[in-house]
Amino acid sequence: MIKVGIVGGTGYTGVELLRILVNHPEAELKVITSRSEDGVPVADMFPNLRGHTDLRFSVPDVSTLGECDVVFFATPHGVAHSLAQEILDTGTRVIDLSADFRLQDADEWEKWYGQPHGARSLLPQAVYGLPEVNRAQIKDARLIAVPGCYPTSVQLGYLPLLENNLIPEQMLIADCKSGVSGAGRGAKVGSLLCEASESMMAYGVAGHRHLPEIRQGLQRAAGKAVNLTFVPHLTPMIRGIHSTLYAQAPGLKDDLQALFEQRYADEPFVDVMPAGSHPATRSVKGSNMCRIAVHQHQHTGQIIILSVIDNLVKGASGQAVQNMNIMFGLPEDTGLNQVALLP
Amino acid sequence: MIKVGIVGGTGYTGVELLRILVNHPEAELKVITSRSEDGVPVADMFPNLRGHTDLRFSVPDVSTLGECDVVFFATPHGVAHSLAQEILDTGTRVIDLSADFRLQDADEWEKWYGQPHGARSLLPQAVYGLPEVNRAQIKDARLIAVPGCYPTSVQLGYLPLLENNLIPEQMLIADCKSGVSGAGRGAKVGSLLCEASESMMAYGVAGHRHLPEIRQGLQRAAGKAVNLTFVPHLTPMIRGIHSTLYAQAPGLKDDLQALFEQRYADEPFVDVMPAGSHPATRSVKGSNMCRIAVHQHQHTGQIIILSVIDNLVKGASGQAVQNMNIMFGLPEDTGLNQVALLP
Amino acid sequence: MIKVGIVGGTGYTGVELLRILVNHPEAELKVITSRSEDGVPVADMFPNLRGHTDLRFSVPDVSTLGECDVVFFATPHGVAHSLAQEILDTGTRVIDLSADFRLQDADEWEKWYGQPHGARSLLPQAVYGLPEVNRAQIKDARLIAVPGCYPTSVQLGYLPLLENNLIPEQMLIADCKSGVSGAGRGAKVGSLLCEASESMMAYGVAGHRHLPEIRQGLQRAAGKAVNLTFVPHLTPMIRGIHSTLYAQAPGLKDDLQALFEQRYADEPFVDVMPAGSHPATRSVKGSNMCRIAVHQHQHTGQIIILSVIDNLVKGASGQAVQNMNIMFGLPEDTGLNQVALLP
Amino acid sequence: MIKVGIVGGTGYTGVELLRILVNHPEAELKVITSRSEDGVPVADMFPNLRGHTDLRFSVPDVSTLGECDVVFFATPHGVAHSLAQEILDTGTRVIDLSADFRLQDADEWEKWYGQPHGARSLLPQAVYGLPEVNRAQIKDARLIAVPGCYPTSVQLGYLPLLENNLIPEQMLIADCKSGVSGAGRGAKVGSLLCEASESMMAYGVAGHRHLPEIRQGLQRAAGKAVNLTFVPHLTPMIRGIHSTLYAQAPGLKDDLQALFEQRYADEPFVDVMPAGSHPATRSVKGSNMCRIAVHQHQHTGQIIILSVIDNLVKGASGQAVQNMNIMFGLPEDTGLNQVALLP
Repeated sequence: MIKVGIVGGTGYTGVELLRILVNHPEAELKVITSRSEDGVPVADMFPNLRGHTDLRFSVPDVSTLGECDVVFFATPHGVAHSLAQEILDTGTRVIDLSADFRLQDADEWEKWYGQPHGARSLLPQAVYGLPEVNRAQIKDARLIAVPGCYPTSVQLGYLPLLENNLIPEQMLIADCKSGVSGAGRGAKVGSLLCEASESMMAYGVAGHRHLPEIRQGLQRAAGKAVNLTFVPHLTPMIRGIHSTLYAQAPGLKDDLQALFEQRYADEPFVDVMPAGSHPATRSVKGSNMCRIAVHQHQHTGQIIILSVIDNLVKGASGQAVQNMNIMFGLPEDTGLNQVALLP
Repeated sequence: MIKVGIVGGTGYTGVELLRILVNHPEAELKVITSRSEDGVPVADMFPNLRGHTDLRFSVPDVSTLGECDVVFFATPHGVAHSLAQEILDTGTRVIDLSADFRLQDADEWEKWYGQPHGARSLLPQAVYGLPEVNRAQIKDARLIAVPGCYPTSVQLGYLPLLENNLIPEQMLIADCKSGVSGAGRGAKVGSLLCEASESMMAYGVAGHRHLPEIRQGLQRAAGKAVNLTFVPHLTPMIRGIHSTLYAQAPGLKDDLQALFEQRYADEPFVDVMPAGSHPATRSVKGSNMCRIAVHQHQHTGQIIILSVIDNLVKGASGQAVQNMNIMFGLPEDTGLNQVALLP
Repeated sequence: MIKVGIVGGTGYTGVELLRILVNHPEAELKVITSRSEDGVPVADMFPNLRGHTDLRFSVPDVSTLGECDVVFFATPHGVAHSLAQEILDTGTRVIDLSADFRLQDADEWEKWYGQPHGARSLLPQAVYGLPEVNRAQIKDARLIAVPGCYPTSVQLGYLPLLENNLIPEQMLIADCKSGVSGAGRGAKVGSLLCEASESMMAYGVAGHRHLPEIRQGLQRAAGKAVNLTFVPHLTPMIRGIHSTLYAQAPGLKDDLQALFEQRYADEPFVDVMPAGSHPATRSVKGSNMCRIAVHQHQHTGQIIILSVIDNLVKGASGQAVQNMNIMFGLPEDTGLNQVALLP
Repeated sequence: MIKVGIVGGTGYTGVELLRILVNHPEAELKVITSRSEDGVPVADMFPNLRGHTDLRFSVPDVSTLGECDVVFFATPHGVAHSLAQEILDTGTRVIDLSADFRLQDADEWEKWYGQPHGARSLLPQAVYGLPEVNRAQIKDARLIAVPGCYPTSVQLGYLPLLENNLIPEQMLIADCKSGVSGAGRGAKVGSLLCEASESMMAYGVAGHRHLPEIRQGLQRAAGKAVNLTFVPHLTPMIRGIHSTLYAQAPGLKDDLQALFEQRYADEPFVDVMPAGSHPATRSVKGSNMCRIAVHQHQHTGQIIILSVIDNLVKGASGQAVQNMNIMFGLPEDTGLNQVALLP
């Protein structure tokens, strides 16, 4: 059994980690921390966990965390910067769901997050935890940066084209729609039901923190600079990201559908749907799957990729556990075979 | 492995059975029928099942169904009447999710369902599949009538009071709120998003088909006639039933909270919450749990029981599988340990 | 033109007042206050008002407010206590949407609101602004306490029975369901879309601040003590209250339907629907109407009254304007003839 | 008073026409037709209209309709083809909300709608009812084709760039998100609350009937062929369209914000928001306004136009009444000054 700790378990990625881990056959939850909720049973805050765990929140403590085999950070950005080194020093592995180690360029990180980068020395060993790209490195990693939700859906959608050098120097457009849980469990007016339901809006058009992360990933795949316009939208639902991705590939000779199917043939959590499909986010609600469909517009030749995930699962906690499974030599889908809740 | 067949798998209780059964460690799905979708892969209709099953719908056929150990009916009322006997004759057990065998009084059934009862001779062997009441009979049953969604939440809420004869001859009021999935997957104007969302309404105040079923169950528990007013409400959400149950128990001497806790102490799927709690339906979304809280009004002495279930799980398909587990000697929670999806 | 001021215009009842008043043919909006938003154009905060008003928020100032003919308070409780007297002294009339003057018993108020009552001397002149009961007093009032949302829908539902002394000394049960806007625009976790949507729950079963207000109103109508159990529920929608009201009237001889129709025959904002109806909250969304249907249960004789309003209109800002119209001798429906937004 | 008839009033554009017209100070509703609901009071079907109209549905009859000054068609496509000529012959003007006269190219119409065009001879006199483009022709028109919902929001967003020839021969991308009411009031599985809520999906990527209409309008504005990719998405809300429009304008020298503000300076129903804004669909819910914001991406130079409307108002019935006002010489906003319902 893998002994597991969670730092910061009071947000949505925290409770989602718990939902997955309490039924994971090879994981044993040892500790979950929260300064504000010290002593409170986890199931008091999240009653869906009643009967599944007796754990109580406790104040983060390196010696206790250090007894775990792996510690997940489900914290706001900045926290893992200050705590990861100490935990790594105990020999415990770290899987960080926050943005702290996602960007290899610390200056870029500081620009977007508006604060000093607290752990530059750890960057060389931080592995970007997108299994479909970095499976080999993840296996031996001691520090994982779990990709963001938008970046996961956008990268998985563009990879087959970029890796095969099919998109020349031109504009990519990622028009992405996210459920409100992407904004977290913080009490913000904009996330109120009366503000966010029955409405649709774009946000962060001038710049969103996931933009540099997406660009970094796409450039690695392309082996060159990538020109990306990214427009996120707040969508009136709890879970789900729908990325509508546009690209032009004038030199494309091969079958587009086959290109995608072959790229993901062995991936347990990427499902390339039949040609002509329109994946709905509800088809992945509560599951770790990314479903993708590719279209080419009859008149314009524009390639349109539709990529959907559950932002809290494949976009966060499920992908984190997928990384854990790889790191500990387990079958990659251990504890991750939930069927999406439909309807 | 238990060989399982499903008759009528295109509705919401059908896909929910599939969601549970494809991950059930002791069940093997052999056949699923639909006349209209003959030959269509189940996962084409319900893409959440892609990768979980390769099964195709087929036309119902008694010889194929008869090779199963158990057949679930997830059909409109009337279908199990005409088909159950033939299947039972092959030695296969039947678990019926429809209303066909819920009422022991066939005349009453005909009055509420407006058609002749097609299988009166089967009624003596039909066991009402509420494990919290009929566990012993379920074990040996060959034909199970799975309780309706409202009846499950209402009966579990009232049982501790009625079984202990604490409610004298007076009025019970069950004010129940259901998500729209209770109306099924049929294309009805009243179930459209534009009709049912952002709105709340009562319906069937003059009489609802679940009323005689609830009354039958409460009277069994009380050992006498029960006077019940039942008002269902259509609530703008997909899943969930919230029953708010009112009763007066002037002779109550014991601790109300203890009464409920003791009654359900050994029940794997009834969770009596701490005194003062207000269970939310989302705390059981996708899970087989019924959560109950009991209150007594300071000024009026009125007892108020709050009982929540997921209408598609404990109110239908989950309870059906719970019955199967009991019938086949499995631990009762086999394949039913899903944590509710929150948020 | 009636010169109008609004104190505290940044919440949902504030923006709803604005929505109604900018199109009111006899009202001229002169000032709207908010300490935190001083100088900000109202339409910057509420873009639905762009093009309808150029007004900016300003710090509350008695001399400016005193130039108005009437000032609405759309503030948290306690604010009107401290400011109303000064405004009344200038000769300006006050319509308070908060709870400050709803309870005539100041001790009771202090018990439920947990703070000293700041304006006991004003209570004798405060008129409870339910036009269907107090129309004559409203006409000459200088200080109006606009009823709460739950109290409006519950009182209008029970009045015909209580005023005619048809309910003997027994238990009334008001099972009420409210949209989330009833919780206001404050940033609270419980009001987040991810917490409140796709879920149903009761709250405040042990006691809710609207209980004493409802009881006060029902007792006035009955001319005697009333035994009421009130259970509010948080419903996953923005607007609307659905009150399901239970009563027993063993001595009722007359036609129940006629009783209600006659009681409200001349009321512009109470619509008694045909017998057998089930009003939906969406039929009043954005309108000042209260729709009521009455049923009597076939088996139990229980009377069931269904009463729906838009909590922000008839339950707050619309009713406030209805009071203003009466006070200033205008036709009662001036500026209040909006058709509910359906779908 | 303008005497008004409506053909086909049982769908969402029909009830929305009624909502607007019953409060229109210069319109008098004379007749509303529905074959299936002949004799039924309109307010029985749409209870939000109780107290606002006593009209009953009647079977369509040319002589009755011919007594009106104007007849609106709120019918499925094909109906206006067969009936418009007869009504026009009586001297009555026709405003058609269906797609029947939107495309000037009848062959194109037949290709997309899969049936013969039933009124080719009327096409020369059909005026495309987008006031921001065709105000002068609308004034004298006898037959108006009210634009579709997507086409309205997309055209208003692109017009300032295309009319000024600022977009060279390249790809336009319109990524559009619509509420479910755009699919109408028909009982379709895909429009059920349990199918469409809590989910996001693209549809019609291979081709949507609004594509040729949008292209026709953009080409008129540009004076040349336009290369457009249009991807509609089904969004889990009742009302609203959010169009996210992408374009590259390498030769753009002028201030983008000023370009839009000047283009729409005199338009009563187009609101160009301040630079940096993100309009939400709820800011126009129930109103006839189109709100637009323009952005230019810092890194890529891509122009991003955000354009929101209520699909049932500016995208259908409100725009129809706007056309009526122009045709009859009324101030254009008569009866159309509703403030959006927020929250």
